[in-house]
Amino acid sequence: MPPISEETYLLRPIGHVESPLIDPAEAPKQSFEGAPAAWLVFDEAVREGLRELHVGDEIVVLTWLDRADRGVLRVHPRGDTSLPERGVFSTRSPHRPNPIGLHRVKITAIVDVLRIQVDALEALNGTPIVDLKPALKRGGSPPRQAPR
Amino acid sequence: MPPISEETYLLRPIGHVESPLIDPAEAPKQSFEGAPAAWLVFDEAVREGLRELHVGDEIVVLTWLDRADRGVLRVHPRGDTSLPERGVFSTRSPHRPNPIGLHRVKITAIVDVLRIQVDALEALNGTPIVDLKPALKRGGSPPRQAPR
Repeated sequence: MPPISEETYLLRPIGHVESPLIDPAEAPKQSFEGAPAAWLVFDEAVREGLRELHVGDEIVVLTWLDRADRGVLRVHPRGDTSLPERGVFSTRSPHRPNPIGLHRVKITAIVDVLRIQVDALEALNGTPIVDLKPALKRGGSPPRQAPR
Repeated sequence: MPPISEETYLLRPIGHVESPLIDPAEAPKQSFEGAPAAWLVFDEAVREGLRELHVGDEIVVLTWLDRADRGVLRVHPRGDTSLPERGVFSTRSPHRPNPIGLHRVKITAIVDVLRIQVDALEALNGTPIVDLKPALKRGGSPPRQAPR
């Protein structure tokens, strides 16, 4: 693939995933396919950004899938060569020009703000974390009304 | 905020948002608060990745919120100073160390693969697009079973 643009932006990880998943070949494709619990371990520098997270919160974890191939635009879904190739933007393949992983999870434990356990995560051990956001309810309603 | 890590990753935009939203002060905070239809305009280099997208598809658009402040870790929710400050990772504020925007939208038109219209997007005109993914149904089930 030719270079897309001169315009670039720098991602700086805010933490990393600690998971028993080591081997990409054994990792589930999606969290609902038997992904294990994992720890999100954050850098001291972002402590103040994490304080209001609580056990039970549903969040979206954004990761940088650092073992993905950024040159890929067409894939066989789920790596199954019996399925016709599709453009990566209509799949959840990790292989894509900007391999950002989206993982909707529930917080199951928090230790000293910086260590957050989540219920099921398909990301490999050591995967960089780049952002967290509260999950929105379907249909776009906010998760909790702010007090007035 | 001190530098978080020496480890960095380079995002290369795959396209840009065309929207009537020009002024950040007038943009809705969330798509369900009256965001307008917008066009996603992609670079020729990623055409092959887009071919299987169709009108009616629900997708997640990932943007780089290039006018956000990356040094912010605490915000008043929705910019309302009567609300107590919170850590950015428990809010949807654009201001955060890696300002990636997540926008769940429906495709309403496609012109020559590279121009995709979506129903409601709160991103400003010119915002870089970094990825697209099919939206997952709630509870983690896949949007469509692959044929066996």
